[in-house]
Amino acid sequence: MSLDKSWYSEIYPDHGAALSLKIKRKLHEEQSPFQKIEIFETTNCGNLMSLDGCFMVTDLDNFIYHEMMTHPVLFAHPNPKRVIVIGGGDCGTLREVLKHKTVEEAFQVEIDERVTRVAEQYFPELVASNNDPRAKLLFIDGIQFIKDAAPGSIDVIIVDSTDPVGPAKGLFSQSFFETCYRALGKDGIIVQQSESPLFHLELLKEVHGAMRGAHFSSTLTLGFPQFIYPSGWWSCTMASKQGNLRQFREQAAANKTFDTRYYSAEIHKAAMVLPPFAAKALGQ
Amino acid sequence: MSLDKSWYSEIYPDHGAALSLKIKRKLHEEQSPFQKIEIFETTNCGNLMSLDGCFMVTDLDNFIYHEMMTHPVLFAHPNPKRVIVIGGGDCGTLREVLKHKTVEEAFQVEIDERVTRVAEQYFPELVASNNDPRAKLLFIDGIQFIKDAAPGSIDVIIVDSTDPVGPAKGLFSQSFFETCYRALGKDGIIVQQSESPLFHLELLKEVHGAMRGAHFSSTLTLGFPQFIYPSGWWSCTMASKQGNLRQFREQAAANKTFDTRYYSAEIHKAAMVLPPFAAKALGQ
Repeated sequence: MSLDKSWYSEIYPDHGAALSLKIKRKLHEEQSPFQKIEIFETTNCGNLMSLDGCFMVTDLDNFIYHEMMTHPVLFAHPNPKRVIVIGGGDCGTLREVLKHKTVEEAFQVEIDERVTRVAEQYFPELVASNNDPRAKLLFIDGIQFIKDAAPGSIDVIIVDSTDPVGPAKGLFSQSFFETCYRALGKDGIIVQQSESPLFHLELLKEVHGAMRGAHFSSTLTLGFPQFIYPSGWWSCTMASKQGNLRQFREQAAANKTFDTRYYSAEIHKAAMVLPPFAAKALGQ
Repeated sequence: MSLDKSWYSEIYPDHGAALSLKIKRKLHEEQSPFQKIEIFETTNCGNLMSLDGCFMVTDLDNFIYHEMMTHPVLFAHPNPKRVIVIGGGDCGTLREVLKHKTVEEAFQVEIDERVTRVAEQYFPELVASNNDPRAKLLFIDGIQFIKDAAPGSIDVIIVDSTDPVGPAKGLFSQSFFETCYRALGKDGIIVQQSESPLFHLELLKEVHGAMRGAHFSSTLTLGFPQFIYPSGWWSCTMASKQGNLRQFREQAAANKTFDTRYYSAEIHKAAMVLPPFAAKALGQ
């Protein structure tokens, strides 16, 4: 079968694969100072946001990614009060963070304000908590923000970035993780989106190595399905300054008073189990 | 981005999505009495088998599907000796079944002999155990085979079928599950490939309903990633005549003497955990 012009494709050149979504119409296109932002109405997945041609978010499946980038790390921390989201301009991660009552301040530090402004228009569900008094939206460089943060002042850092190319490359480096280590309190945890266990195992190894190199004592990768990301199988990787990342506030997670569609205390435990080929490669 | 003729695409028309693999060359094409069989050499996924335009198997990721269709059900049965694979013509499921020393007889009942003959040529790893004296390859109708089986004569039935359209449609029906119930021994278990939790939740509900309607006492869906299947997230559903499917020979699974790349006793437990949206829909 070949695809006509009603399809929009993201090619994964290093993996000889491409995912295409059928499009009703293009709703928006702009070149921001950082990237090309496009919004499409798809036939079956609701709205789609693409940045520089990479699928970022659809209405259909963003809940999985946003829930898995937030609830495991927040329930792994004993008492997360001050949370920083680096990137995450669509605001879906921020919304999930704000579901936690322990959180007193949640900063979203996104370099490209236009991503958020466009999300406000086309993904109203994702920005629904932006007026929460605990939410602070900053449109500045996240790497610089973490460098400037007072030592020990942050409980959880969530790196909700694009792929490790272009502007997001620095967010996967040991020097960035070193500044995160310094900015985090003694119970501090960082979580980084860490690509596909099937396609990017070498990158995952590097992320673990860079986190350990930055003196984090423990690292742990969690897997989850994500239809619109390469291979349909995605991961996030946590690193803690102390303590066992496999321990989390399981009772609090089981009794949480907010709704989730993908996350549960049981899913949290299940996501920590990697298959032998990946567990061996990551020493997990 | 648009895709030129070096890509081969499978369109999922009901979901407005398509997956494409980059092709080096077509190795084989034939119209069997049942379907169009094509083999491609891909740039990054090894060889690909497609049946009537649907991606079935690649060298890259078939291990996940084949391991998850076999090891959970075989470790869930107390002592599986006589195992029937319905479909599974690429022989990868049969190969995994034969890794179990308890198995005395393993039948692969595939309606289309050409699938197996083509697999012998292009997927030598998958057919590697076909000469095992316990293996019996039959090229007949699986539904009729189960109908003709002596009552109580089978320990495990593995339905490794294509999607529930065309020749495989009957394999998802209550009347088929009723004949399976009759053919299985008292500890008998059937496992059926049951499509995507994201795309096919209604079908999954119907499979559970049809299995329960056929008097199976317990049903359980397991999830796993599968890059080349729609949404990248796949499932199998087990049904048992008695006993709790969550119980399995965990010690035996943990101490198994054969290699697996995806399956482990821990993965077995993790795969039984569905996210809330799916667990609620399936009453699991």
